[in-house]
Amino acid sequence: MLAARLHAYTEEMSDALSIDDVDRPTADGPDDVIVEVEGAGWCQTDNHIIEGMWEEYAPQPLPMTLGHENAGTVVEVGENVDIVDVGDRVICHPHMTCGTCRPCRLGEDMYCENAQFPGLTTDGGFAEYLHTNERAVIPLPGGVDPADIAPHADAGITAYHAVKKAVAELNPGDHAVVIGVGGLGHIGLQCLDAMSAAEITALDLKAAARDLATDLGAGHAVDPSSVDVAAEIEAITDGAGAQQVIDFVGADVTTGYAPDIVAAGGDHHVVGYGGHIHEPSQALVNGEFAYRGTLVGRYAELQELVALVDRGDVELRTSRYDLDEINTVAERLEHGDIEGRAVIVPP
Amino acid sequence: MLAARLHAYTEEMSDALSIDDVDRPTADGPDDVIVEVEGAGWCQTDNHIIEGMWEEYAPQPLPMTLGHENAGTVVEVGENVDIVDVGDRVICHPHMTCGTCRPCRLGEDMYCENAQFPGLTTDGGFAEYLHTNERAVIPLPGGVDPADIAPHADAGITAYHAVKKAVAELNPGDHAVVIGVGGLGHIGLQCLDAMSAAEITALDLKAAARDLATDLGAGHAVDPSSVDVAAEIEAITDGAGAQQVIDFVGADVTTGYAPDIVAAGGDHHVVGYGGHIHEPSQALVNGEFAYRGTLVGRYAELQELVALVDRGDVELRTSRYDLDEINTVAERLEHGDIEGRAVIVPP
Amino acid sequence: MLAARLHAYTEEMSDALSIDDVDRPTADGPDDVIVEVEGAGWCQTDNHIIEGMWEEYAPQPLPMTLGHENAGTVVEVGENVDIVDVGDRVICHPHMTCGTCRPCRLGEDMYCENAQFPGLTTDGGFAEYLHTNERAVIPLPGGVDPADIAPHADAGITAYHAVKKAVAELNPGDHAVVIGVGGLGHIGLQCLDAMSAAEITALDLKAAARDLATDLGAGHAVDPSSVDVAAEIEAITDGAGAQQVIDFVGADVTTGYAPDIVAAGGDHHVVGYGGHIHEPSQALVNGEFAYRGTLVGRYAELQELVALVDRGDVELRTSRYDLDEINTVAERLEHGDIEGRAVIVPP
Amino acid sequence: MLAARLHAYTEEMSDALSIDDVDRPTADGPDDVIVEVEGAGWCQTDNHIIEGMWEEYAPQPLPMTLGHENAGTVVEVGENVDIVDVGDRVICHPHMTCGTCRPCRLGEDMYCENAQFPGLTTDGGFAEYLHTNERAVIPLPGGVDPADIAPHADAGITAYHAVKKAVAELNPGDHAVVIGVGGLGHIGLQCLDAMSAAEITALDLKAAARDLATDLGAGHAVDPSSVDVAAEIEAITDGAGAQQVIDFVGADVTTGYAPDIVAAGGDHHVVGYGGHIHEPSQALVNGEFAYRGTLVGRYAELQELVALVDRGDVELRTSRYDLDEINTVAERLEHGDIEGRAVIVPP
Repeated sequence: MLAARLHAYTEEMSDALSIDDVDRPTADGPDDVIVEVEGAGWCQTDNHIIEGMWEEYAPQPLPMTLGHENAGTVVEVGENVDIVDVGDRVICHPHMTCGTCRPCRLGEDMYCENAQFPGLTTDGGFAEYLHTNERAVIPLPGGVDPADIAPHADAGITAYHAVKKAVAELNPGDHAVVIGVGGLGHIGLQCLDAMSAAEITALDLKAAARDLATDLGAGHAVDPSSVDVAAEIEAITDGAGAQQVIDFVGADVTTGYAPDIVAAGGDHHVVGYGGHIHEPSQALVNGEFAYRGTLVGRYAELQELVALVDRGDVELRTSRYDLDEINTVAERLEHGDIEGRAVIVPP
Repeated sequence: MLAARLHAYTEEMSDALSIDDVDRPTADGPDDVIVEVEGAGWCQTDNHIIEGMWEEYAPQPLPMTLGHENAGTVVEVGENVDIVDVGDRVICHPHMTCGTCRPCRLGEDMYCENAQFPGLTTDGGFAEYLHTNERAVIPLPGGVDPADIAPHADAGITAYHAVKKAVAELNPGDHAVVIGVGGLGHIGLQCLDAMSAAEITALDLKAAARDLATDLGAGHAVDPSSVDVAAEIEAITDGAGAQQVIDFVGADVTTGYAPDIVAAGGDHHVVGYGGHIHEPSQALVNGEFAYRGTLVGRYAELQELVALVDRGDVELRTSRYDLDEINTVAERLEHGDIEGRAVIVPP
Repeated sequence: MLAARLHAYTEEMSDALSIDDVDRPTADGPDDVIVEVEGAGWCQTDNHIIEGMWEEYAPQPLPMTLGHENAGTVVEVGENVDIVDVGDRVICHPHMTCGTCRPCRLGEDMYCENAQFPGLTTDGGFAEYLHTNERAVIPLPGGVDPADIAPHADAGITAYHAVKKAVAELNPGDHAVVIGVGGLGHIGLQCLDAMSAAEITALDLKAAARDLATDLGAGHAVDPSSVDVAAEIEAITDGAGAQQVIDFVGADVTTGYAPDIVAAGGDHHVVGYGGHIHEPSQALVNGEFAYRGTLVGRYAELQELVALVDRGDVELRTSRYDLDEINTVAERLEHGDIEGRAVIVPP
Repeated sequence: MLAARLHAYTEEMSDALSIDDVDRPTADGPDDVIVEVEGAGWCQTDNHIIEGMWEEYAPQPLPMTLGHENAGTVVEVGENVDIVDVGDRVICHPHMTCGTCRPCRLGEDMYCENAQFPGLTTDGGFAEYLHTNERAVIPLPGGVDPADIAPHADAGITAYHAVKKAVAELNPGDHAVVIGVGGLGHIGLQCLDAMSAAEITALDLKAAARDLATDLGAGHAVDPSSVDVAAEIEAITDGAGAQQVIDFVGADVTTGYAPDIVAAGGDHHVVGYGGHIHEPSQALVNGEFAYRGTLVGRYAELQELVALVDRGDVELRTSRYDLDEINTVAERLEHGDIEGRAVIVPP
């Protein structure tokens, strides 16, 4: 089968991956599931993997097929698999977990001590077929097209997971700030709107993204290049600050907003990871705020997000590309030239 | 009356404060309470105030009497005061709150929009008498000496507040790390022991502090100058990391431990504030950990801490000094030469 | 001034209260606030008070003016009052709290150890003027008519408080059941819809109430007299049961649904209180569910509800009556003949 | 092998079970684990099963081997089993869960949609060998004797689970009441003491149980037959009531204490299930308290309890019996004549 594979880390996106002909995976283990991929989202993390940014955090045997936002149709299952059958359409949670370590027993899929992450530590879904397991697949409601929902497998639950943590701290009348209304941010904003009665302010450098934010439920959309962000948030929140900030950018400048815009006792959720945090400890103490990292989301949370999609509460903006256009996608995302989320549709 | 006052910010602790003769405060407002001070703890924050580190965060009219860890006997009350009478012994929460702003109505005393903080924004307790209000005083159980309990008014609840947040996330068998077993740390360690069944590891450069930690319930006491901290915590926690780290130092080096020692999903509580956080956003994302600032604690938490003290669960190591020894105390704390917590006992 | 007062407990609603001419209250204490009443909601609890059902739970000096859902304009304030001025339009939380007992310090207004409850333990708002205090009043956003919002002072926050507890346990895709879509239930249903992405099923004997439920966001509206409720909820929830049930009726039959319709680990919130719970302990154990009583709500929650109203998320169905129609209202509510919430508008 | 089996429901404990010779189970499935039983606790629930009280709640194919508190040594494992090996000593969680339904994915083992419960729905551990699975076994720390720890498999985690819910609501200085200091209660009391700084009051009719309670950390031990319980708790708690009540009896009389002894906003946890709740809805509303059912506990909680045992925080009082004494045990427990927890030690 055809698969888009990374052979060496590179800064050069235009020929980052090569389309190879490799063996089709088979369901050898009792819990194995083989999925014919119908949609695989391209993620900013794919660019980071190509650049080698994850080498330090996750073992990566090259060459490796990328692609961790996968959906498609089950074509083969191991003998013990109960929750799906051949022919079922599924979305694939990106963590193939063991199910028996303590984090798994607590429902904390992302902390599994024995997990594989297709497209990050093992072959992923920019290919005709994907090897995954029963613990990673969720059957889709009728009528949902796998290519439409695929990006929720990572972009979606990452945004949802961060928003769910924020929503737990938000009361009606409180303010939430969403930094970056791109692939993740536009999902997060809709989740916030569906799951809370907070006032939402979006920050984005691009006018189109700000317009999208307003369409999707933001009460205010702010261009951080044209105003003083701290003063603007102070005005919008009547001096109280934002109880929750969800930072889908994670750059030096965006993490630096926290001391000025987070309300006392609030949180700045770090979802994007382009830069650093540089703050005096005293700033965190004085405002009693937190920087909270957020890592993808749980299997059960992906079930919840699928329910949100099925309710019509979250609409995903996608554009489709063929497998052989994959390096074009990589390059365009690098330059911020992708509308909504790019989805690779294998042949 | 005599009062130890700051006239100008300085790095020179040996003559930082001067003993002035000033007017004794009176209970003019209906909620006012005047306390004859019997003990006022000296806090690292007093050194920071003297150096001007809080000028940016809190308005400070100089000259000002320092001292925010106060306890003593009520000598005068306003007409509306119900919960104490003249002659009652009390500990004074350091925030004089308004009681009617939204944070106050939520029980979030530290976020009060109209508060005064004696010793930080108005005259404090390094004096014969202190002006405070009904919302700041808590009657002491019989037999508790004000000079013994005074440091709990700030050191105590700050440690307690951080520990309470940590305890909410700690299950039996989980690991907690306490960084710094000084004035706050030795209280925090005892609170952790009383309120959880977590395994406690203490980090301190000084052998005496490590011995104290072991006496007070730590299963392990580590000298960070002689071992690789990350490897040591990994060994102690069997590879899982510490679910909760409470950092009473807050220096660059101690906040830098987080990515290596905090378990997935855990927290690094920033209580001390000597330095900075410098970390890539990706570190927080990969480990899904948080840096959580912590600011003193609530009035109701000081009630809870007084209950812990009354149960015998928390023992405070103090040493007493006369008011005219105050600059000696400032200088000795600056050089780490104070045993336990210094308490000023006015004449 | 005129006031509608209860002189003796009675089952006879048609002449339960008499319109008396009494002294107008004055702001004698420093925290007092006098409000000219522009709207006072009539509540099922008023019928219960008239029948003597609250005599056992709350001291009631008769004769007493009823009315605990009050809104109007401030006409006089005590010397210490800061948050409102004469001329401000306000809604009145029904608990006049002390602000200094431990429950008050925790933000738990309803558990205040020294509270008065106008219309239940002291004179209420079925009168031209109401005596309340600073801790009970919340300024209204511009353009909100006091007579429109008055019932939120009790019906509203009681529904909101129960829903807020339920929402904390509801994930997208989970099911909530609302029993009774009357004065409280129709508010609760809208709060649920605004604050969660749960699937909502409403139960009501009346077709008009079921239609209202569907209009306000319920996915299903069930007539419990025509179907087997357990089977119906099992079908709607695909066998899982409802994670949260909010019972605005509290009759024997409605509390009896719990073992059959509450999902494992879920809650049956008891808001209405017409009847009893009669269940074997084993039923609660087997389903690990809870019966959770709910009592009005906090001051801060009324602020949150006012924010919801201001956002347009909660619409209140009211009908207005003159003060001299008050016994007609009592009688009609007794027979279920009130559309929406009745609001008394004093002269 | 020998197994003690129930052939028909009966009220007659003296010959409730018969010792049969049956086939030894084998590890046919990939996740199967066969344990040689070294200790199997006898539980009040065994009496209830014999009487047919669980027939309505759980399918029971008779004849069936009882025994759901099992520990022993692994003698055979299926091909996929990773976390234990032959020769490992283990305690067995009583729920054999599927691992893939939504409750399992949330960590809610007790709500598994496809579980078996040995001794309740399939053959249990009053036998030489037990058939269980990988998801049910937890390796024991070195030096722990399976016969000593076996009762923790159900009595232990049931008590622990209820206490953990209570501890989340208990602050230092708050009061907890433990009703019934028998097999579960004496474990729960120790967990409370280890995991909180609450003041503990125990209620038990037997002097020996009250003495045990005092030994294990209760500040007060009350004989409910000799005092007015409501007045006694009011005196002990200084009028505030108990924030948390853990009712290990669940009789009509004990659930009836709640309106009088639970503090506002508190909980009455129903663990034992001998009787009924009969209360007016208004009682729950007025005190805003909850009756919360509690059902065994999670696998991860049994890990936490094993950690508590390993720390020395929980000591179990047991007495050992041979398999052929099993009906004597049944009868003696029925009459309250068992000291601590009875453990059956198969040959």
